[in-house]
Amino acid sequence: MITRTVPDIVVGRLPRYLQALEHMYREGIKTTSSQELGEAIGISAAQIRKDLSQFGEFGKQGTGYSVAFLVEQLQSILKLTRIWDLALVGMGDLGNALARYQGFAEHGFRITAAFDNDPEKIGKEVAGLIIQDSREMKRIIPSLGIKIAMLTVPASVAQMVAEELVDAGIRAILNYAPISLNLPDDIHVENIDPIIKLQHMTYYLD
Amino acid sequence: MITRTVPDIVVGRLPRYLQALEHMYREGIKTTSSQELGEAIGISAAQIRKDLSQFGEFGKQGTGYSVAFLVEQLQSILKLTRIWDLALVGMGDLGNALARYQGFAEHGFRITAAFDNDPEKIGKEVAGLIIQDSREMKRIIPSLGIKIAMLTVPASVAQMVAEELVDAGIRAILNYAPISLNLPDDIHVENIDPIIKLQHMTYYLD
Repeated sequence: MITRTVPDIVVGRLPRYLQALEHMYREGIKTTSSQELGEAIGISAAQIRKDLSQFGEFGKQGTGYSVAFLVEQLQSILKLTRIWDLALVGMGDLGNALARYQGFAEHGFRITAAFDNDPEKIGKEVAGLIIQDSREMKRIIPSLGIKIAMLTVPASVAQMVAEELVDAGIRAILNYAPISLNLPDDIHVENIDPIIKLQHMTYYLD
Repeated sequence: MITRTVPDIVVGRLPRYLQALEHMYREGIKTTSSQELGEAIGISAAQIRKDLSQFGEFGKQGTGYSVAFLVEQLQSILKLTRIWDLALVGMGDLGNALARYQGFAEHGFRITAAFDNDPEKIGKEVAGLIIQDSREMKRIIPSLGIKIAMLTVPASVAQMVAEELVDAGIRAILNYAPISLNLPDDIHVENIDPIIKLQHMTYYLD
């Protein structure tokens, strides 16, 4: 498998392919084509074939892809054949909603630790998690081997908390704070910001 | 201003430029360069210059961009010089967190109506909004002139509810349900799915 030269934009499309394929799998669909997959997610068949070809030969000319096999391959490429522990940092409304969201566990992500700096919140339980003091991150995160954090703190402190997470051994941050984090190049950051998405769509409205 | 041929991927970067520029503006920074802006958000200076050139001449060779002027121009291009009403559909944990999120109002987005189909939730108040019966969407949404919806219903009903929203006059959907919606081409959909973002990052971890 050749993975070292795959552009990040291609990697970013793989989870969308996987999501659509898992949906097909649950619906009992055994085989699919790049056309069918493309229609389901709004990406061209040619793009899908090109993206997948970066990782090997997964389909046969004329017969298409085995859904189960392609699900398995994509899970393996994306390192999803194991459980990933997550730290949830910032237990406001959004942090609470994420703590209760079932979707993480369904996809092999387990929120293992939740942190806040508010004495009113520390020690409280949310969805089976005891909220811990964020000053303890540097001790707790390495001790649990957590590499991924979801950051749901206010924008004003997000950069500082992100740096503390990196110091604690975090390698990937899903950033819900509406700012661009400035972190070392080897730290992977993905941003989730509804405002950015809404502003993208208003361009087309009148 | 030439806008008709701008690729969607370019449009999608404009809100990120705007976010960084608004941050500079709040910090009192008067002028910036494509280099500085690029470093702040991790996009190359050349890409930023090329993207902005699609919409006109905003900077002067050697002196860079006026932050205030560029903020104003991007707000105008993205149609952000007005208030946009939003419908929030699905008042579970995430819907509740979004209803309480201050960031929408700060950026000219106003949640004007909230809907759910759960009789236990209908009539309750969240952040000053009375949750309304989702069977009333087709009457209420057009009467308020709402064009944008945030969809936070379970995946199993998201497609059906999205179609109801389109029938009610919604033109743009911010979809939090973890499925690809299949809607007419003139409906704008943006997806927010933490699982997709996490699976993108696990590729790089070990």
